[in-house]
Amino acid sequence: MSLYIVEAEIMPKRGVNDPQGESVLSGLKLLGFDRTSKVRVGKLIRFQVEAESADAAHAQATEMCDKLLANPVIEEYELKVAEA
Amino acid sequence: MSLYIVEAEIMPKRGVNDPQGESVLSGLKLLGFDRTSKVRVGKLIRFQVEAESADAAHAQATEMCDKLLANPVIEEYELKVAEA
Repeated sequence: MSLYIVEAEIMPKRGVNDPQGESVLSGLKLLGFDRTSKVRVGKLIRFQVEAESADAAHAQATEMCDKLLANPVIEEYELKVAEA
Repeated sequence: MSLYIVEAEIMPKRGVNDPQGESVLSGLKLLGFDRTSKVRVGKLIRFQVEAESADAAHAQATEMCDKLLANPVIEEYELKVAEA
């Protein structure tokens, strides 16, 4: 059993409305950052998991995303697994 | 002027309470993922910015984080800049 650090990047899917991103963009424009565009706001979830291998940790993290961390209808995710 | 894609990873600082992370951890345990620990939930903000160089894009993004995207009291951030 080894300890792995998992990073799940969860972003709204392309084409899905992102009101948080729109509101950040307006805020940035108001502050004068007018060369900014296409703001998307997602979640970054970091955790540790004990597993037999990096592949096993990845499989567990995938299940976690599918069951709890991400909403598969509107979000997509990417996982990074590294040994702790 | 080139277009750059900036990724800002904004996480609660070490030592700062992370109620969202705690609640995700309880949810995971309830679902049977009992080898998980140290969950931290942060924000991932992706955007495009027009700038003269990657360094200039980085400087602009730093200013954006300091002024709007991150709360320097409780959050720390890391920036990744890539040419679009």
